[in-house]
Amino acid sequence: MTDRLAELEARLARIEDERAIERMIASYGPLADAGEAEATAQLWAVDGTYEVEGWSMNSRADVAAMVRSDAHQGLIAGGSAHFLGPAVVTVDADDAVAVCESLMVVRHDKKYLVARAGVHHFQLCRLDGRWQIIRRISRTLDGDAEARRLLAAGVAGLNGSGR
Amino acid sequence: MTDRLAELEARLARIEDERAIERMIASYGPLADAGEAEATAQLWAVDGTYEVEGWSMNSRADVAAMVRSDAHQGLIAGGSAHFLGPAVVTVDADDAVAVCESLMVVRHDKKYLVARAGVHHFQLCRLDGRWQIIRRISRTLDGDAEARRLLAAGVAGLNGSGR
Amino acid sequence: MTDRLAELEARLARIEDERAIERMIASYGPLADAGEAEATAQLWAVDGTYEVEGWSMNSRADVAAMVRSDAHQGLIAGGSAHFLGPAVVTVDADDAVAVCESLMVVRHDKKYLVARAGVHHFQLCRLDGRWQIIRRISRTLDGDAEARRLLAAGVAGLNGSGR
Repeated sequence: MTDRLAELEARLARIEDERAIERMIASYGPLADAGEAEATAQLWAVDGTYEVEGWSMNSRADVAAMVRSDAHQGLIAGGSAHFLGPAVVTVDADDAVAVCESLMVVRHDKKYLVARAGVHHFQLCRLDGRWQIIRRISRTLDGDAEARRLLAAGVAGLNGSGR
Repeated sequence: MTDRLAELEARLARIEDERAIERMIASYGPLADAGEAEATAQLWAVDGTYEVEGWSMNSRADVAAMVRSDAHQGLIAGGSAHFLGPAVVTVDADDAVAVCESLMVVRHDKKYLVARAGVHHFQLCRLDGRWQIIRRISRTLDGDAEARRLLAAGVAGLNGSGR
Repeated sequence: MTDRLAELEARLARIEDERAIERMIASYGPLADAGEAEATAQLWAVDGTYEVEGWSMNSRADVAAMVRSDAHQGLIAGGSAHFLGPAVVTVDADDAVAVCESLMVVRHDKKYLVARAGVHHFQLCRLDGRWQIIRRISRTLDGDAEARRLLAAGVAGLNGSGR
């Protein structure tokens, strides 16, 4: 009976891990669109990175600065939705990979436009008892081979370098 | 061993609660776009409310009436998707808060347009053994400070009044 | 205590089943947009079907051929997002039904357009120890009564024929 208990605990812990990461990713859009710089940045590890085309952030502080930037604040003041879809999460002990697609929707001239469709590949680690993003790579879905590679790697549970 | 069992039961019950609410929110769009007035309304408590800009519903019956309204029926007859993203759910015993973003997509002149991007903040209670919406507030993401406040409150698990 | 353990195991197994199916559906868009013909096709049973308006696939091999087709490859080379929302999944032993809405977003003239909003109704079976799609029906949300029927049937856990 102890074996059955231990097995249940392990299966439940896996689901809790996956769900914690799903929740983080589902929180990103709402926090970014709210302009919550600190709460958004807390999703990242202190030295976590975020590569998005033409912009490279190398720390939690860099992510907070991005949310506070005039560019981002202008975006949300006009009306924006960083709309991320359901994530596919793969956990391996204290490491994890997740991937999802997104639509970046912005308000312009009283209309909403899809400014961009993208892929988001996340690597996470369990640090200090909670999951933290150590690397996020975002690419526009414009036919780019690297974007397509990140989609496939993410579903397969491989990291952003394909390992 | 009884302690371990009790702890497992509590952790599992929390996940079941969160998932039941996620399922309700994931069902809203399909039910609303199907025009299923009764099934949509059953997501709400008998005296649950739904505030959406320019429209205030104060009961389950009001929600059913909204789905049956000419405005809503016209929308779905032309083609619409009340497309809600993954919800962030926070359960505290028999109370819960959830938040998600949405895209309201409508067909017009054989094209699809994003008519609106929004935030949806839900307060739920466990009543008669199942989760029911007691208050839903929807706001357009057009730079409105209230919309941004609802996003942040929802992720933090605070109710629509920020408590 | 054995009863409590058995009940926990059954509740956990249900969640694992539902989550496995949610993961498959969340993987579809990323795999299709990556052009991963084999991995996409593996979501289907060997003789699984996929009906999408004007196109009828009757096997796993047909699905792979669709992903490899010039039409699909042209779509993803230009930039596309098969953006599926959170699925509502109902499991009954070794059978399951799932439903979600989607936005098909394509890049055209350096802009992104919502080419289509749709409903996707899935029937799945547990075969060889894993869930496999035995029937998927996709319909455009353009006011079509069949599309609306599939939405309602999917949330109610009924199969594509409404049973």
